[in-house]
This record gives sequence, C-alpha cells and structure tokens, in this order.
Amino acid sequence: MFFIVGIGLGGVKDITVKGLEVVKSADEVYLENYTSILSVGKESLEEYYGRELKLADREFVEQGCEEMLEKGRNSDVVLLVVGDPFSATTHTDLVLRAKKAGVDTQVIHNASILNAVGCCGLQLYSFGETVSIPFWMDGWSPDSFYDKICHNKERGLHTLCLLDIKVKEPTPESLTKKKKDYLPPLFMSVSDAAEQLMEIVKKRSIETDQQLPVDGETNCVGLARVGSETQQIIYCSLNEMKHKNLGEPLHSLVIIGDLHPLEEEFLALYL
Amino acid sequence: MFFIVGIGLGGVKDITVKGLEVVKSADEVYLENYTSILSVGKESLEEYYGRELKLADREFVEQGCEEMLEKGRNSDVVLLVVGDPFSATTHTDLVLRAKKAGVDTQVIHNASILNAVGCCGLQLYSFGETVSIPFWMDGWSPDSFYDKICHNKERGLHTLCLLDIKVKEPTPESLTKKKKDYLPPLFMSVSDAAEQLMEIVKKRSIETDQQLPVDGETNCVGLARVGSETQQIIYCSLNEMKHKNLGEPLHSLVIIGDLHPLEEEFLALYL
Repeated sequence: MFFIVGIGLGGVKDITVKGLEVVKSADEVYLENYTSILSVGKESLEEYYGRELKLADREFVEQGCEEMLEKGRNSDVVLLVVGDPFSATTHTDLVLRAKKAGVDTQVIHNASILNAVGCCGLQLYSFGETVSIPFWMDGWSPDSFYDKICHNKERGLHTLCLLDIKVKEPTPESLTKKKKDYLPPLFMSVSDAAEQLMEIVKKRSIETDQQLPVDGETNCVGLARVGSETQQIIYCSLNEMKHKNLGEPLHSLVIIGDLHPLEEEFLALYL
Repeated sequence: MFFIVGIGLGGVKDITVKGLEVVKSADEVYLENYTSILSVGKESLEEYYGRELKLADREFVEQGCEEMLEKGRNSDVVLLVVGDPFSATTHTDLVLRAKKAGVDTQVIHNASILNAVGCCGLQLYSFGETVSIPFWMDGWSPDSFYDKICHNKERGLHTLCLLDIKVKEPTPESLTKKKKDYLPPLFMSVSDAAEQLMEIVKKRSIETDQQLPVDGETNCVGLARVGSETQQIIYCSLNEMKHKNLGEPLHSLVIIGDLHPLEEEFLALYL
C-alpha cells in the first residue's frame, strides 16, 4: 500500500492517530520537504515517530519516485506531507500515478492553511479564489495574482495569498551540471508580499485614472506559523504590512473583502 | 482553558495526537452535533476516548454555552467539532466569545471538507467561492447560490457546494412551546442537490434566451463520506447526478469549471 499522510501545520503531535499508526507500522517512510515546511524539523519528527525518515525533495518526487510507488506494491510505504495531502498539485499527481499503476493507495487527511486560515476569524465561505505570490527575480515579475485579488475584492470576497518558498533550488550556474549546488532556502514574509503588491499598485496607478479596488489602504491579515505554539496574526493596511515583522516562516497573507460584523469584531483582537 | 478540537471527517482515529491528549486529560468534553456529523456515532467516540461526551446541540451552543465557557476559566473544557473548528460560523463566534470573556482558548485544527475535497483530484487553487445549498421548504426556495456557481464557472473555477443538514430541528407546531418536539434528521444527498439545481436551470431557461453557464450538461462531482473507509466519488453531468445514489450522509457536490489535464485524468477514475 502507498500511503500519503498529511501531518498538519504545527508540531509533531498534529498528525492524526490513524496517521501515526500507519507511520509506526510502515516499511519505509519518506518526508516531502520542498512544497512546505513544518515549524519543527525532520529530527523532531524522527524522534517522536521513533523511526528514520527519508527526505523526498523536488528531484525525488518529480523524477525518482517510481521506485517509491513500486515498493508500495508489496510493502507499506508512506509519504508524509505538511498540511493535507492534496494541498499541492505535485501530490495529486503522485496519487494519480499510483492509482494508474494499480498500486493501492490510502490518503490520510489533515488541516492545511486553506482551512486553518479561519483562525483569524474570517469566514471560509467568504473567500474567493486562492492565489500564490511568487518571488520576483531577474526581471521576472508576474502580477496576474493582483487581478485575481481585485476580482475577489470587487465581489466582497477575501483572498488567501500563499507565499512563495524556495527550498533546494539549484544555483543558476549549476543548473546544467550533473552535480548541483543549492541556494539557501528562501521564504516570503508578509512584508515581502505587501511590498510586491504595493509595487504592482504603483505601476497600475500610473496606467489608470480610476481608483484601484486594492491599494495601500486595503486591509489585510498577516499570519505566521498557523497552528503552532508561536502562531502570530496581525491586522492592518497593506501599507502598514510592509513594515511588520512576523518572524520565522511560514507566512500567509489575506486580502480582505467585505467584513461581516462578527469578522470585524474578531479581527479587532489582532489590531 | 477552553479547547475547541477538530475531529476530522472519517472515523475515531482521525483526531490528532494533540487533540486526543487534550480530550483524555480534560475535565469535561462536549461534542457539537448539529452543524455536521461524523460517519461514526457518539458511542464509538466515547469508547475510543474512554470517557463520556456531553452532546452540544444547537440550543446549547447558541444559548446555553456561557456555562461551558465559564468552566474554561478554572478547568479544562473541550468542545469537539467535526472537521476543523473554523468550518462553521457558530464556532468562530464561540471562540470570539471566549476570548472576549478573557477565557484562555486553544484551537486544534483538523481536515475539513473545504480542503479534503481535493481527494477527487480537483485542485484546491481552482475553486471559487464555496456555496451552501439549503433544503427548499414551504414555498421558501432561495437560489442565489446558483448565481455564485455560474460566476465561478464563467471564470473557469470549480464550486464546492455544501449540502444542507437538519439535525434536531423543532417541529413547526412545537416552535412556540416550552417542550419541543423534533423532526427526524435530514441530510441532503447529491441527487437532491442536483434536482434543486435543475429546477433553477429550468426556471432561468424560461426567463432568458441565452445559454446558461451552468445547466444539465455541466459536469459535476458527487462525494460521499469523504475521509471515511466507505468514501465514494462519482463524476458525471448534473442531469445524470439526479439519478445517482451515494448512500449514507454526508454528501458534497462540486460543480466543475475549466479542467486542467491532470484534473481530467484524475476524474476519469470516477466516471
């Protein structure tokens, strides 16, 4: 059996009881570590589970995972994933590949930022399409996510912005080489995200005479390390968010649509 | 401390290890049982947790819960909630009330249908606003959710439709009485939902000459008992969904927007 197990967001004990049983009894356990990270490291997980974990990085998941799936045919193989197993396209792809290869699969769900974001008091039913904000680099500065945020805003909906992470990215120089060198990991903070958004606002303001639906005065919520003991939430304008420091990753940003009185009252706790 | 603990979607072992520890050591444990239900009953949970659970129904949560929150001031009180604690407005309200009353609160997240719906292969980032489809009754037949579904569809986005449940609803005759009688519980099935949607389509077709964005030919996914061992998923048109029987509750319906090739391939497993 090939198991894909969500380990949630915060600490070692956020795995479900069912998930832990599977981890303890499996033949091999891999830990996916490039689409997200837990606030605790691999060593803490290994200590808590009482067993060794093999790291599954991007190269492994995207290229070398056939072997892992094949092992699932005759033994129990587990892939641990931060959040819920279906929170990244690459995991959905993996489940599909396993199913198509005729390997029995089992998915064990858990919380992910897509539902845990409710902890700030915003209603999950009032969110529109989720967007991802990528790091701009080397002249590559996409901004289509801004249009999606504006579209949600115009309909009164909130937007969850998932902030880029770069883990185990090869250096540009080593891209074509056999032996890769890697850049240090990079995690986008809420202030980075607010800054990029404000740059887009600045550019768009020049291009139009009309009032933009989302600008520096728009309110937003910054969230850091949701579900962990050091979780932090802050509520302010985008302009102000540029200067906030919420500390260690992971961060997420919500651009606010229309507020229900209950949401307003809840957010006031985070002013 | 007042704890609100998500118990996930499937069975007794879907609670997190952290959640289980809290349940085992708390002074009192309540089980909320009217915004959602687990595939297993209260007795199974009690047996697994090794302790008695008090039922918290709508009246209790909306009116009589001050006592529960007050107890949280000097002892450990737990409210168990199916899915994630923030999957219903009423729980957000409860957390807010506790915080404002100065009672320490802790939230323990879990999977909810809002992220677990990814199990059908549709990407969570391609969902628009979530809608709720209520049971029509006694001439009350709201249809604004249809417009939201159409709006998502026109933007190529999928729509998760949460289907109504009625648990411990007083009979109309006993509404004004002190001692209430209750109607039997009622859970909307994917075929009920498809039927209501098709009635709206019929009505709207008469009102307009234009092609509706969502009609009987639109594809959808029916999901039942997500996360449990008896989970079922089916992919067909809305017209066909009217005749499908996915068995026991809870059911959810997804109206499909534009499909990515990976999504298409995944859904083909559920034809």
